[in-house]
Amino acid sequence: VASPTTCNQRSWDILLPDFPEGPLCEYRKRASFSWKEMAVFIDEEDLIQFKNRIFSAFENDPVFARYPGEDVTLEKYRELTFLRCKRLFEYEFLKLEDIMEKPLKIMVLINCLGMYDWSLGTKYLLNAQVSTTQRKVFYHVNIELICTCCFMGIRTTARYDPSTQKFIINTPDFEAAKFWVGNMGKNATHAVVYAQLYTPDGQCHGLHSFVVQIRDTKTLLPMPGVMVGDIGKKLGQNENHCTYVAPYKEMQRFGASLGALSSGRVMIIGMSVVNLKLALSIAIRFSATRRQFGPTDEEEIPVLEYQMQQWRLLPYLAATYALDHFAKSLFMNFIEFHIGLLMKDKSPRQAEIGREIHALSTGGKPLASWTAQQAAQECREACGGHGYLAMNRLGDIRNDNDPNCTYEGDNNVLLQQTSNYLLSWVNAKHQDKASVASPLGSVNFLEDYNHILGQKFTASSVEDCMDSSVPLAAYKWLVCYLLRESALKLSHEKQTGSSDFEARNNSQVYYCRSLAIAFIEQTVLQRYHEYTHDPDTPSTLQPVLKHLSALYGLWSLSKHMAVLYQGGYVSGEQPGRFMQHAILELCSKLKDDAVALVDVIAPPDFILNSPIGRADGELYKNLWTIVLQGSKVLERPSWWAEFCVNKPVVGKLRSRM
Amino acid sequence: VASPTTCNQRSWDILLPDFPEGPLCEYRKRASFSWKEMAVFIDEEDLIQFKNRIFSAFENDPVFARYPGEDVTLEKYRELTFLRCKRLFEYEFLKLEDIMEKPLKIMVLINCLGMYDWSLGTKYLLNAQVSTTQRKVFYHVNIELICTCCFMGIRTTARYDPSTQKFIINTPDFEAAKFWVGNMGKNATHAVVYAQLYTPDGQCHGLHSFVVQIRDTKTLLPMPGVMVGDIGKKLGQNENHCTYVAPYKEMQRFGASLGALSSGRVMIIGMSVVNLKLALSIAIRFSATRRQFGPTDEEEIPVLEYQMQQWRLLPYLAATYALDHFAKSLFMNFIEFHIGLLMKDKSPRQAEIGREIHALSTGGKPLASWTAQQAAQECREACGGHGYLAMNRLGDIRNDNDPNCTYEGDNNVLLQQTSNYLLSWVNAKHQDKASVASPLGSVNFLEDYNHILGQKFTASSVEDCMDSSVPLAAYKWLVCYLLRESALKLSHEKQTGSSDFEARNNSQVYYCRSLAIAFIEQTVLQRYHEYTHDPDTPSTLQPVLKHLSALYGLWSLSKHMAVLYQGGYVSGEQPGRFMQHAILELCSKLKDDAVALVDVIAPPDFILNSPIGRADGELYKNLWTIVLQGSKVLERPSWWAEFCVNKPVVGKLRSRM
Repeated sequence: VASPTTCNQRSWDILLPDFPEGPLCEYRKRASFSWKEMAVFIDEEDLIQFKNRIFSAFENDPVFARYPGEDVTLEKYRELTFLRCKRLFEYEFLKLEDIMEKPLKIMVLINCLGMYDWSLGTKYLLNAQVSTTQRKVFYHVNIELICTCCFMGIRTTARYDPSTQKFIINTPDFEAAKFWVGNMGKNATHAVVYAQLYTPDGQCHGLHSFVVQIRDTKTLLPMPGVMVGDIGKKLGQNENHCTYVAPYKEMQRFGASLGALSSGRVMIIGMSVVNLKLALSIAIRFSATRRQFGPTDEEEIPVLEYQMQQWRLLPYLAATYALDHFAKSLFMNFIEFHIGLLMKDKSPRQAEIGREIHALSTGGKPLASWTAQQAAQECREACGGHGYLAMNRLGDIRNDNDPNCTYEGDNNVLLQQTSNYLLSWVNAKHQDKASVASPLGSVNFLEDYNHILGQKFTASSVEDCMDSSVPLAAYKWLVCYLLRESALKLSHEKQTGSSDFEARNNSQVYYCRSLAIAFIEQTVLQRYHEYTHDPDTPSTLQPVLKHLSALYGLWSLSKHMAVLYQGGYVSGEQPGRFMQHAILELCSKLKDDAVALVDVIAPPDFILNSPIGRADGELYKNLWTIVLQGSKVLERPSWWAEFCVNKPVVGKLRSRM
Repeated sequence: VASPTTCNQRSWDILLPDFPEGPLCEYRKRASFSWKEMAVFIDEEDLIQFKNRIFSAFENDPVFARYPGEDVTLEKYRELTFLRCKRLFEYEFLKLEDIMEKPLKIMVLINCLGMYDWSLGTKYLLNAQVSTTQRKVFYHVNIELICTCCFMGIRTTARYDPSTQKFIINTPDFEAAKFWVGNMGKNATHAVVYAQLYTPDGQCHGLHSFVVQIRDTKTLLPMPGVMVGDIGKKLGQNENHCTYVAPYKEMQRFGASLGALSSGRVMIIGMSVVNLKLALSIAIRFSATRRQFGPTDEEEIPVLEYQMQQWRLLPYLAATYALDHFAKSLFMNFIEFHIGLLMKDKSPRQAEIGREIHALSTGGKPLASWTAQQAAQECREACGGHGYLAMNRLGDIRNDNDPNCTYEGDNNVLLQQTSNYLLSWVNAKHQDKASVASPLGSVNFLEDYNHILGQKFTASSVEDCMDSSVPLAAYKWLVCYLLRESALKLSHEKQTGSSDFEARNNSQVYYCRSLAIAFIEQTVLQRYHEYTHDPDTPSTLQPVLKHLSALYGLWSLSKHMAVLYQGGYVSGEQPGRFMQHAILELCSKLKDDAVALVDVIAPPDFILNSPIGRADGELYKNLWTIVLQGSKVLERPSWWAEFCVNKPVVGKLRSRM
């Protein structure tokens, strides 16, 4: 009779086939856990099945064929992405009933597309969003949500003409023009335009949205009176994207609730995690197979064996795991909230959950996108010159992640929303109002505000620091401290004559901004700590998961050490040293698990599309294969004759200057 | 009778024409100093003249014509760069006698080329290096210096065959192949190959270099037995570059002196400064003209007025000025050393200066390249979506700067050389040897090692912190503290049984690496502090220069605050707050000077090639001009029919999965 473990093993092996033999096996053998068990625990079997379906459809369909580092023109690339996007609708990986049954599948689908190529992922997302209810007319009505970066400055007007019963929409000049296009440039046929509505009596009724046909649907030529075009190449995601800066106040004017606006940011958190997974998979597999120097002249060791390399990469691997959990759990919070909206739930809890999700998404998007941006850069550098080759994809990952720092709100601007949420808690408390409810529990610890502020760091050895409870306690103190300091700073600014506008602006750096960052890091850590320490978490996985949690916590906290000292939470030489040594100790413990941890999160080779990141670890063979299959690599350049015949006369043009 | 100032003014106006009127004038008027006086003070008149000559030759020559954000294929781009490089030899901007008269002109020339395009700058640099003595045969012998990343692993052999009196060079397999090519891929005809030399008696004589013809010079076809090709696109500098990892020990084997090896790194420091200048020019001009939000709904203010924006950008502007000075002064140190080499100076001073320059360049290259990399990212984000448009060049700057972190030695690896230099000082002291001489004075302060370690932070107000002497004193303590800690860590590692190799590897993170970074920052600050406080520095410029020096010092130091607390140099809440407030105060003082400071360092518009960075500040007009002049921007895509006719059948392929 097969034991349950054997049964599991069998079903895992079908779901998650073994990796090919190769240089990475050495590390895989040393792992303290089964990567398949971990994958099933983290991602659930049906979602893995769903991913496999998408990935294998791509791999088997020539429309998705591609080549690492290929060099195509923008025009060609856009056509390819268009064809692929169209294909996605033909595959219809998700039906409405699938989503209802398992909402996480939306996130998984978008992330699978992004793992293949973010241009495709975001193009599909935007088209799917607007066409959910009109699937059958897809790209009959190919709507692009466009917004200017600055809502306040919107000077486009919509004047109602009673004689024709039409609105006349007019953008007065270049500065008022919509510059932030995405899909629209070359092929969108309709646009949603925000304009100031004027009625015939000359009264302005504020911003309203209008669906405007901008191109003929048969010919794609612009409609009369419309100028629409392409603003040119971006650094990445060169198919499209939609930037959407939504300041709180303005959005209330649109009548939409805060929570509902979080959907974009919640998705971006997930997108950033995808980029973390891609970058770390490449860099860690490279580091485990790339050998350089060694204790003797004869023996070279994998660069992953160096403490420096571990310290550069493994904290980002821990961050990937912690943020992945956060992204999913926040998505599920959002779904709960969204169902409330659909059910027309008018309870105070529903309103509060909206505010809380808003605070978590406006903090979480900056944290996730910045972490991914820094990780992509660190991974690029950690792979040396190989990381600098376009074919290995780290450049694309960095470029494609970059707009995550800007759209749906510039990171630094967004963080103000998170700190506002926390400061409003202090204000409510001072005004002796009932303490602010926190349906998701994110600010419950603030109930102990005064008590926490009186706490000190108590760990008295490196071993004491090896659990995430230590950085978590420090984070709670840090949030309370920065909350107090920010509130004091704001009131000091106002007392010394600053207007509200000035006071707010002058209390961001070192105060509200730091507060928001500390709070969201604390929240991510809190959730991951609970997840990894949950008794239901398989005991076989707990040790490595707890290491990840501790490393993420200590490493994140280490950037705030100066404030911990400044505010007196820690003092003397020892706490700093303990934490530093604990970080290095955790890196050293995790390095033998690193390849298996990456096996859990890496997509198949075809999707990862990076010769140095392939699962077989055959670094040089893979590089050479791709190099030699490149177009015309061994040919002389087409302009060889110019090179060989027309020699320059040195100094010939000197007189021209 | 004209006063000397008027005379100066007249000559400055010829050298440095006024900028066009426009939105930036408002800030220009507010500047506390004359940008022309600053330019002449910093760059010297003859060098400005030289720059002007190069820039105007480019602007007037159709070979250098280009278009912001243009999208050309790799093949076409390489051809263009080749044609431009050839043109440079025809211009012959520098003759040997010009260089002898003013060596800085080499640096100025390379940096001017880089301001135009780094692919051209580095291609020219590599070709010029090898062809200085053979100018007339340029690209008859188009040599590329190639080296593998890992010297230890070189398995290419050169066997001497007495019968033919030839060397037979053989690379056994893919792993041993030279992968790090630049120029060579498509058009180099000769290569310098490092190989293990074997004599007929079977003895190995170690690494030697061989010039090998790899292509026929008439046809560019590979020579028999040679496989040579293109390794594909890189993230930036897609014409070429040569990576050169040179570990100390190995290089001694080549018999070259340490100082002489620094030339590449010294150049990279300058290249990184160029990237800082480009990125800051774009971001600050943008911030001074881009308006967003404001105290009232009607009035929008330039984003440069926000404290947050100032704090994001102005410290990098200060870093640009401080590092620019460091780059030039280190270059001049190098020239002094190089002259010594040419004069066959065998004095101990000459040897010591070589070691010192090695320590400064192995530390300075990481500092400059990382600072530029972070600045490019911050500038990109600070320009929001506009920064993300390829035409505005911030993406290219980031991509082109990226290899500076890797070649001539990975930054983290190189820093070991700097800390080794400092640790050898401690060892010499412990062994009661004569204190190490420091011809450039970089480590002279270590004489007071014990005294400095006893010092504490003494500033007692924000005002006290407003001069760079405060961070400088803190830095000296920091270097001494980290030096002591690193030495202790190393000896502790050895005492607990680590081999030398392990001890060194396990003492980098938090110890030797931090030491090297603190030391080089201290050195840059020391030099800039002296420069800005020199009585010969014009009194009209001193105030703004001193602000830059103080801001650079405090901002750099702020990243080490935790260590200052940990080691007891500062304690309590106040020092941290003082420094933070001083940084913000300095940002606020510098924001009205920022545009003028950028006018000093920005190249002409044609060279800067960024619509949002143009000197007239006509942000939207410039953007629109470029957008509308782009190729086919208003046309529908060439594949429009595919879009309009072949509609997808949603779900058609669902069964395929």
